[in-house]
Amino acid sequence: MDGDRPIGVFDSGVGGLTVVRALMERLPRESIVYFGDTARVPYGIKSVATIEHFAAQIADFLLGQSVKMLIVACNTMAAVATDVIRARAGAIPVIDVIEAGALATVAHPDRGGIGVIGTPTTINSNAYARRIHALDSSARVYSQACPLFVPLVEEGWLDHPVTRMTAQEYLRPVLAEDIGSLVLGCTHYPLLKPLLKDVVGPEVRLIDSAVTTAELAAESLNAMGLASRRAGLPAYRFVVTDIPLRFQTIGERFLGRSLGKVERVDW
Amino acid sequence: MDGDRPIGVFDSGVGGLTVVRALMERLPRESIVYFGDTARVPYGIKSVATIEHFAAQIADFLLGQSVKMLIVACNTMAAVATDVIRARAGAIPVIDVIEAGALATVAHPDRGGIGVIGTPTTINSNAYARRIHALDSSARVYSQACPLFVPLVEEGWLDHPVTRMTAQEYLRPVLAEDIGSLVLGCTHYPLLKPLLKDVVGPEVRLIDSAVTTAELAAESLNAMGLASRRAGLPAYRFVVTDIPLRFQTIGERFLGRSLGKVERVDW
Repeated sequence: MDGDRPIGVFDSGVGGLTVVRALMERLPRESIVYFGDTARVPYGIKSVATIEHFAAQIADFLLGQSVKMLIVACNTMAAVATDVIRARAGAIPVIDVIEAGALATVAHPDRGGIGVIGTPTTINSNAYARRIHALDSSARVYSQACPLFVPLVEEGWLDHPVTRMTAQEYLRPVLAEDIGSLVLGCTHYPLLKPLLKDVVGPEVRLIDSAVTTAELAAESLNAMGLASRRAGLPAYRFVVTDIPLRFQTIGERFLGRSLGKVERVDW
Repeated sequence: MDGDRPIGVFDSGVGGLTVVRALMERLPRESIVYFGDTARVPYGIKSVATIEHFAAQIADFLLGQSVKMLIVACNTMAAVATDVIRARAGAIPVIDVIEAGALATVAHPDRGGIGVIGTPTTINSNAYARRIHALDSSARVYSQACPLFVPLVEEGWLDHPVTRMTAQEYLRPVLAEDIGSLVLGCTHYPLLKPLLKDVVGPEVRLIDSAVTTAELAAESLNAMGLASRRAGLPAYRFVVTDIPLRFQTIGERFLGRSLGKVERVDW
């Protein structure tokens, strides 16, 4: 397979752009097609059947763009729809943020008890705990849904007293369990890292699933001989199902750079 | 037309159940078909073209249920898609939460300056200010988007310090304008009434668009000779596009009573 084909990254909205940002930094030669389902975001409050249906549609779209790898950047889809996506992808490798986060967390020697935070659907799926326990059955995992973090990030209240008070309330039960690691199980949460670091204190290591996903993608591409060897600049495409008010502003906050032209597909 | 036909009420999700609740209290003989687009909620962050498309689909569905009146319970749809809905409805009367809120606000003799709060799409559409100015060009209107109120209500933090702090921050600029009325321009906001009353103080009258919509519906049905004369119990149907986690709990909080059986349609 041609290593110069793009990587397909997908998410329910803009959050997955934190994964794209980490991929651009870790794999600067790779071309990327990003798909964000902004007309139907957020997935975290929808039923499993609906999320599976949407995930299959998006996977088919990206496979139609001749991608060499699929990255499920949406924790909610990774939690409940990876089987559906893998079945669509066939021989194309699929990696996801939950697998990447679980691997990175368990690999750390001083991980201690493991806290996991995410949307209600991600947490109720128990996907992080299951994947972590599949890697190490002795791991202690404490999970907490944080439904207000996504709207707080989208409001831009990244360092706001309301966000701090909300984080203190959500994290109180997890912090009572003497954890050593906290997995940020939602692509919006890396933007809250400085505030969360303050709230959890210096003893707790934050696991950023955007960074761990880029790392796992790099390892997988190398292992499969699929890394790009191109000398020129990579191509980036951003495809969404809706371009709502403030999309450009919010998207660029996640990506950490200009988005350029955004394409809209109509379903 | 048969007055025993149901009223069709629609919303992007569960919020419109506050309007249904007010209708049940004000018009206890009327049957109601409620449609909530829970698979695609929230609309408040989507583009106008997408909202118009969704609104037309829902209007067609309810017109297919032989409703005698359409009530647009979603402020976002009322703000940007009423023309599309009226064109679909033809001779069937259409009333909406913004029209009802604007009429009730302007009608009050001591209204003073008028504050309006809502989702970003509702506020940016300027629909409340336009409808209020059409009724009284001398009205002073001060608008403020409150994007975190919907997630805070859905989290159930109706009387929480985080919600209070958020309300104080959002309302500060509006309260600086010496207002006499505050229009709750989103169907989620009636659940925050006690907290908002505290934050705005006793001098400011809260206009609850669920209550004003039920009042306008009653007046319109009477004026058109369309009120139900049935002696038996009315029928209530609740149709949604997705039944997510916690739907029943959240829905019943809005409705103030049991939802009974909820039907799901697949699009």
